[in-house]
Amino acid sequence: MLTVDLNCDMGEGFGPWPMGNDAALMQYITSANIACGFHAGDAIIMRETVRLALKHHIAIGAHPGFPDLQGFGRREIKMSPDEVFAITLYQIGALEAIVRAEGGVLHHVKPHGALYNMAAKDRKLADAIARATQQAGPGLVLYGLSGSALVDAGLAIGLHTASEVFADRTYQDDGSLTSRNQPNALITDSAQAVSQALQMIKNQHITSASGKNINLVAETICLHGDGAHALEFAVAIHAAFRDAGIAMKAP
Amino acid sequence: MLTVDLNCDMGEGFGPWPMGNDAALMQYITSANIACGFHAGDAIIMRETVRLALKHHIAIGAHPGFPDLQGFGRREIKMSPDEVFAITLYQIGALEAIVRAEGGVLHHVKPHGALYNMAAKDRKLADAIARATQQAGPGLVLYGLSGSALVDAGLAIGLHTASEVFADRTYQDDGSLTSRNQPNALITDSAQAVSQALQMIKNQHITSASGKNINLVAETICLHGDGAHALEFAVAIHAAFRDAGIAMKAP
Amino acid sequence: MLTVDLNCDMGEGFGPWPMGNDAALMQYITSANIACGFHAGDAIIMRETVRLALKHHIAIGAHPGFPDLQGFGRREIKMSPDEVFAITLYQIGALEAIVRAEGGVLHHVKPHGALYNMAAKDRKLADAIARATQQAGPGLVLYGLSGSALVDAGLAIGLHTASEVFADRTYQDDGSLTSRNQPNALITDSAQAVSQALQMIKNQHITSASGKNINLVAETICLHGDGAHALEFAVAIHAAFRDAGIAMKAP
Amino acid sequence: MLTVDLNCDMGEGFGPWPMGNDAALMQYITSANIACGFHAGDAIIMRETVRLALKHHIAIGAHPGFPDLQGFGRREIKMSPDEVFAITLYQIGALEAIVRAEGGVLHHVKPHGALYNMAAKDRKLADAIARATQQAGPGLVLYGLSGSALVDAGLAIGLHTASEVFADRTYQDDGSLTSRNQPNALITDSAQAVSQALQMIKNQHITSASGKNINLVAETICLHGDGAHALEFAVAIHAAFRDAGIAMKAP
Repeated sequence: MLTVDLNCDMGEGFGPWPMGNDAALMQYITSANIACGFHAGDAIIMRETVRLALKHHIAIGAHPGFPDLQGFGRREIKMSPDEVFAITLYQIGALEAIVRAEGGVLHHVKPHGALYNMAAKDRKLADAIARATQQAGPGLVLYGLSGSALVDAGLAIGLHTASEVFADRTYQDDGSLTSRNQPNALITDSAQAVSQALQMIKNQHITSASGKNINLVAETICLHGDGAHALEFAVAIHAAFRDAGIAMKAP
Repeated sequence: MLTVDLNCDMGEGFGPWPMGNDAALMQYITSANIACGFHAGDAIIMRETVRLALKHHIAIGAHPGFPDLQGFGRREIKMSPDEVFAITLYQIGALEAIVRAEGGVLHHVKPHGALYNMAAKDRKLADAIARATQQAGPGLVLYGLSGSALVDAGLAIGLHTASEVFADRTYQDDGSLTSRNQPNALITDSAQAVSQALQMIKNQHITSASGKNINLVAETICLHGDGAHALEFAVAIHAAFRDAGIAMKAP
Repeated sequence: MLTVDLNCDMGEGFGPWPMGNDAALMQYITSANIACGFHAGDAIIMRETVRLALKHHIAIGAHPGFPDLQGFGRREIKMSPDEVFAITLYQIGALEAIVRAEGGVLHHVKPHGALYNMAAKDRKLADAIARATQQAGPGLVLYGLSGSALVDAGLAIGLHTASEVFADRTYQDDGSLTSRNQPNALITDSAQAVSQALQMIKNQHITSASGKNINLVAETICLHGDGAHALEFAVAIHAAFRDAGIAMKAP
Repeated sequence: MLTVDLNCDMGEGFGPWPMGNDAALMQYITSANIACGFHAGDAIIMRETVRLALKHHIAIGAHPGFPDLQGFGRREIKMSPDEVFAITLYQIGALEAIVRAEGGVLHHVKPHGALYNMAAKDRKLADAIARATQQAGPGLVLYGLSGSALVDAGLAIGLHTASEVFADRTYQDDGSLTSRNQPNALITDSAQAVSQALQMIKNQHITSASGKNINLVAETICLHGDGAHALEFAVAIHAAFRDAGIAMKAP
C-alpha cells in the first residue's frame, strides 16, 4: 500500500510574535518540524507546539536553523561543518528534552531555510547535519530535499531518510526546484498542486516546468504553515490522498 | 569515609572570547558545571569543554542561566516559573545531547548567577528548576546553595541534591553568605580558605563572620574558574583534602 | 486653546514577524514611539516605520527598551543606572541616525515596558534615562507616566517633558494606574474611554476607581497599537477631541 | 610633508569578556575603529572606549559588523544591500550618539570582518555602506581596503575615503592581500613589517610576494589590537614613522 508523509514547519513564532496557523494545520499533517530557538521558536513556544503535536498524534521533528532571528534563518551564513554540526546537535538536544518531558519521542530532523538549501548542495555541511542527527539519538529520520546531498549524506552513514518533495513548487529538468526568482516557481492553483502531489507519490516522477517527465523519490510532502493558501492547500491535499486510498503516516 | 565534591563553572567563554583556565583546573576538581549558551558558552565551546571533562573523568553538569550574554547571567530577570522551567529544560537538553554524542552521561544541574541566587530564595522558581531537572532525565543531581529553597525543592520531588558551600566566602549567623558589597565578604587568604573548607566538610558546620558556630550541610565546594587566585586556591584545597584522607568524588 | 498629543508605540515587529496596524493608526495619532531593536524593531522595520511617520507628518520618538526580544521588554531586568544610561543612549542614537537619513528630526523619547514602569518609580533609573535623552540631542521631549519619577527626573535637568495618561486604564486614589492583575484595571468600553480621555485633558483630573476626583497632569494620551479594539478606540478618541475643539498635536 | 594614519580596531570585548589591549595601543595610533554592538562591543564598552580615545585625542570611527557575536562578524552573511545599509546606519548612529554625549565628534566609518571583505568585492554592498556613511552625517571618512569596491563606492558619491593597507600581510601581484590560508600570508617579523609600512607610505607601492613592484594607494595602516605581537608592532611602526619624519594623523 502506498504511503505518504505530510510534514509542516511549526512553532515558528518568537516571544510576543505568533506565526502560522499551527492548531488548524495539525489536523491535516502527519509530521511537524518544530523550530528550535535559533531562527524562530523559543522554549515556551517549543513546549506549546510539542504539546499540540502530541495531542494530534503527529510525529515530532527538530527543525534546526542558523542563529538568525532577524533573517528567519533564510540568509546564508558561511559556517564551517564543525560549527554546523555543533549548532544542529545543540538544537536537536534542546527540543528532544522538551519532547521527552512531555512524554513523547523525537522522530526526525529537518533543517530550516538557508541551512536546508546549503546542505542540499554542500556535501560537507550535509555530512555535518547527518552526523549530528545520528549522534543526537538512534533512529532519528533525516528529512532532506529529494535528490539532495543531505539525503545522500544520511544514507551514507546508515540513517533512515525521508526524501522531501513540494506540491506547490515547479521543478527543472534536472530534478531541482525552479528558483523562487523565476516567475513560474510557485504553483498557486490548488487543483494543480493536488495533481502534482498525487503524481509524485503514485508514480515517483514529476513533470518538469518544460514538460519533461523525470524520476524522483517522493516520501514526504512539505505543506506550508503560513500564507493565504496554506490551510486550503493542506485540506485539499489531505482529502486527495484519503480519496486515493493512500495512507498518510510519518516514515 | 568522608567525601567531598569539588565543582567549578566551566566553558564560560563565548565565540572569540575565552574565559577562565579550564584545562588547568580540570586536574583539581571532580565535577564541572558547563555553561549552556544563554549566559555564556556556545555550541562549539560546549563540545570542547565536554571533551576536556571526559578526558579528565570529571562529572559533567549543565549550568543553565538567564538569556543575557551581555550581563553574563548576573542580572535578575523577572521571569515566571513557567519561563524558567522552559529555559532550564532547553539548556539541559542542549548540553545533554552534546555529552551523549561524546560518549558521556550528564550527571547534574547547577543554575548560574542570578538564576542560582533567585532560586535560593524563591521557592516557585526553585520548583521550576527542580522539575526541569527531573524531566530532563532520571538520576540528575541538583546542585544548590546549602540551606536554600533550591535544595528544598529538589528534595521535595525526590531528586538527589548536592548542598553547595564556598571556601572563599564568609557566612552570616543565619547560614547565608555575607553579601558581596560587605568588606569582609571574600576570603582572599589561601590558608584561611583551606581551613574553612576542611571545617565545613569534616564537621558540617562553619564559623560565621561574627564568630558563631553554625551547622550547615556541605556536600560540594565551589571553586572559581576565573580570577587571580583561582588556580592557587584549587591546588591548595585539593591538596588539603588529599592530605586529610578525604575522598574527592562527584555525588 | 487646549491641546493634546495622541501617541502610539509603533514598529514593534521583528524580522519576519509583524505587529500592530501601524499604517491604519498613523491617521489618528500625533506622535509615534518607534522601537529601537532591543525589545522589538530591527533596522529595516525602523526605517519603514520612520518613513510611514514622516509621510503622515507624525512626530517621531525613540522607544528604547530592555535587551529582551523574547520577553518583549516586559520583564524587569536589574540593570544599574549606568547600564540603563548606556543602552538608552545607544538606542536613541540608532533611531536618530535613521530619522536624519530620511530627512526628519527626532522629537522625543519614551521608554518601553518594564523600563518605563521601573523608571516611573526608581529615581536613579529615571535620572539615567533623562540624562541619556538630554545628551542624545538638544530639545528632545521626555515622555513619562504622569506623576512619575521619570517626569520628575526630566524636569529636574531642564528637559521638556510630556506627562502621559491612559484612556483605557483605571486609576487609584493616589493617581497610580490600577494594576493589570486587578479585574477592573482595563476600560474596554469605547465610550467610557473617550469620556475619561476628555475629562483628563479638559480638567486635568480623573475619577479614580473608587469614585474620588484626583488631579493629574495630562499632556499626552497613549493609544495602543495592538489588540482587538486598538483602531476603534483611536478613531473614537480622535473624533471626540476634534468635535470638542481640542487641538491635537505633538508637544 | 608625508602623512600617515595608524588605525586600530578597538572596543571589541563584550559583556564580561575583554579583548585586546586598547589602553596601551592608544598611545601609538591616530584613529580608533570602535565596535558597535553587532559583532562585538556593548553600549558600556563603547562608552569606555570612546572616553579612552578622547583622552588620547584619537580620531573615533564606527566599526560596524554583521549581527554575529558568536562568529565575531567574521562569517559571511548573505544580506541584501538594503539590509546592509540599515544595519550600518543603525550602528553608526548608536556610536555617534555616545561620541556626542562624551563631547566628541565621529570621524570615520570602517566596516568589520566579513562585511569589510565582502564590501571590498561586491559593489552593491559597498554602495550600501557608502550611502549609510553619507547619510549618517556630513564629513564622515570611509575607510576601505586600498583598491577595493568600497573605496570606489565612497569616491563615487563624493565621500572622503582612506585607503587602508596592511604592514603585516603580504600582497599578490594584482594588489590583493594573500589569502590567510596561504603559508606566507602573514608577516611575523617586526622589522619586515616596519619596512613594508615605510615603503607603502613613502612610495605608494609595495613589493608583492612574488617580488613584483606594484602601485597602491596607502593612506591608513591597520594595526592589530590583539595577538602576541600587536603592541610590539605598533611601537615599532610608530617609532619608524617618527624617525622618518612622517606625520602621523587621522585623515
